Amino acid sequence: MERQFELWFTEHQTENVALGLRIQSTLHREQTKYQDLAVVDTIAYGRMLVLDGAVQTTVADEFVYHEMITHVPLQVHPRPRRVAIVGGGDGGAVREILKDPAVERVTLIEIDEAVTRVSRQFLPSIACGLDDPRVEVRFEDGIEHMQKHEHAYDVVIIDSTDPVGPASGLFQTPFYTSVYQALADDGIMVAQTESPFLEKELLRSAAQAMRAVFPRVDVYLAAIPTYPSGLWSFTMGSKKYDPTIPQRRQLNGATRYYNFALHTGAFALPNFVRELVAG
Amino acid sequence: MERQFELWFTEHQTENVALGLRIQSTLHREQTKYQDLAVVDTIAYGRMLVLDGAVQTTVADEFVYHEMITHVPLQVHPRPRRVAIVGGGDGGAVREILKDPAVERVTLIEIDEAVTRVSRQFLPSIACGLDDPRVEVRFEDGIEHMQKHEHAYDVVIIDSTDPVGPASGLFQTPFYTSVYQALADDGIMVAQTESPFLEKELLRSAAQAMRAVFPRVDVYLAAIPTYPSGLWSFTMGSKKYDPTIPQRRQLNGATRYYNFALHTGAFALPNFVRELVAG
Repeated sequence: MERQFELWFTEHQTENVALGLRIQSTLHREQTKYQDLAVVDTIAYGRMLVLDGAVQTTVADEFVYHEMITHVPLQVHPRPRRVAIVGGGDGGAVREILKDPAVERVTLIEIDEAVTRVSRQFLPSIACGLDDPRVEVRFEDGIEHMQKHEHAYDVVIIDSTDPVGPASGLFQTPFYTSVYQALADDGIMVAQTESPFLEKELLRSAAQAMRAVFPRVDVYLAAIPTYPSGLWSFTMGSKKYDPTIPQRRQLNGATRYYNFALHTGAFALPNFVRELVAG
Repeated sequence: MERQFELWFTEHQTENVALGLRIQSTLHREQTKYQDLAVVDTIAYGRMLVLDGAVQTTVADEFVYHEMITHVPLQVHPRPRRVAIVGGGDGGAVREILKDPAVERVTLIEIDEAVTRVSRQFLPSIACGLDDPRVEVRFEDGIEHMQKHEHAYDVVIIDSTDPVGPASGLFQTPFYTSVYQALADDGIMVAQTESPFLEKELLRSAAQAMRAVFPRVDVYLAAIPTYPSGLWSFTMGSKKYDPTIPQRRQLNGATRYYNFALHTGAFALPNFVRELVAG
C-alpha cells in the first residue's frame, strides 16, 4: 500500500482553539527585523500571509477585511481626500481606498518593509495598488508618524497586527490622541479591534481608550473565516459625522462584501457586543 | 522531565479546513439508530454536542444559533401561537421560543430520541425548556409529520443537521411544499442553510427550492464561532409578512445576541451572498 501524507498549517488562535488549513506548500519564510513572516499556499483559501504565527490575510477571504476597514470609514466622510494607513503593508487596504473617487493621496505607513516586499512578490492580487501614483509608501513607525503630523489626514486607518510585538502601542489612548491631532477637524479614524468572542477585554479597552479622545465612537462587525472565531470588530472614532450613515459615493470598481445597506447593518450589534462596548 | 499531553477534538469541517478545540474529557458517546452522538467538554466553549463528527452546539455559543433561528421568524409574525421545530432535539430552540409571550404551543419533532435524552442529561442549560407544559416532544420523522398536518402551524423552524444522513431530505422542494401546506395562510418557515463561505451551492439551491414554493424568500446571517467559517445562513419563506421588519414584542427573558435593530441588520447581506441567493 502506498503511504499517504497531508500537510497542514495550524494556528493556535488561543491556547484552546486552533484553525487548521491543509496546504500545498510553504512559499516563503523569513525572520524580519520585527517578526516571523511566512507565505503558505492553502487549498481552501489560496495563498496566505502569516506574521508571528497569526493569519494576516488569505487571497480568498481578504476582500471582507480590506473592504470593511476602508469603505466604511471613507463613505462616512463627504470628501476623504487624504487617507493614511498604519500597518497594512500587504497593500489590500490601499487597493480598496483607490476605488473611492474622492481620494487624492494615500499614505501607507508600514514599519516592516519585508511585509510589502513579500506581498508584492507572492500576493500580487492584494498588493496591486501599491504602485499607483496617488500612493506613498513609507517604512517607518506609525506612532512617530502620527505624532509628527497635525491636521494632515481626513481618514486614518489602523490596519495592524494583534496587540503584541510591534503593534502593542496601537491600542492605547496616547496613540489615539496622536491620531486625533493628525486628523482634520471633521476627521475619522478606524482600527481593527479583534474578535468580540475571544478577545472581549481587548475590544472593551480599545473602545474605552478611543472614547477618551473622540466625541463619538462606534463599533461595527464583519465575518472573516480565517480570523479567530470568524467574527471581527472594527472601532471607529469620529470628530463630526455619524458613522452609521454612508455618503453613497459610487466606487470605481466592484466590492464583494461592502454595500450601503450592509454599512448600516454592520453597526447593528448583538447584545453581548453592545454591552461590551457600552460607553 | 515530566511528559505533557493535551487532548484535542478536531472537526474536519471540509476536506481542507479543520477546527481544533482543546478538551477536558469526553463525557458520552453512543451510536444511535441514526447517527454517531458524542458530548465532549471543551475548554474554550464548555460542553459540546457532536453528531456524526459535526459540532451541533456548545454551551458558550449556542445562544447565537438558537436566538437567531427562533426570534427572527417569530418576531415577523404578529401572533405566532403554534410553532413547530423539525430537529432541534437539544431543546435550545424550544427554550428561546418559550420567551415569546404570543406562543401557546411548541411541537418538537425530533427523529432521534437519543439527542433529547443525552441533552437533558448533559446539557441542562440548553434542554431546560423541554418540560414546559406548552411543549410537546414527538420522536418521529419531520418529513412525514409535515405531510400529515395542514394549516397546523404559524411558524415552522427547520433546526436540522447538515444535509447528509437523516437530514438530507430537508433541503429540497418536496419538503418545503409540505411545510407550506402545514402552515397557516400567513405562516412563516425558516431553515438553517449552512455557511455562505464554504457551502455556496447548498445555500443557493436551498433558497431556490424554497422560492419555488413561497412567494417571498429572504436570507439572513449570524456569527457562530464553532460552525464552519463562523458565518451561518438562515433562509426564511414567508406567505405574507415582510421578514425584515420585527413586530417588536417584548420577550419574557433576556437575549444575548438578538435585538430588533440586529433583526433588520441581519438581512443586509454582503454582495457575494446577495448574488448567491438572488432570485
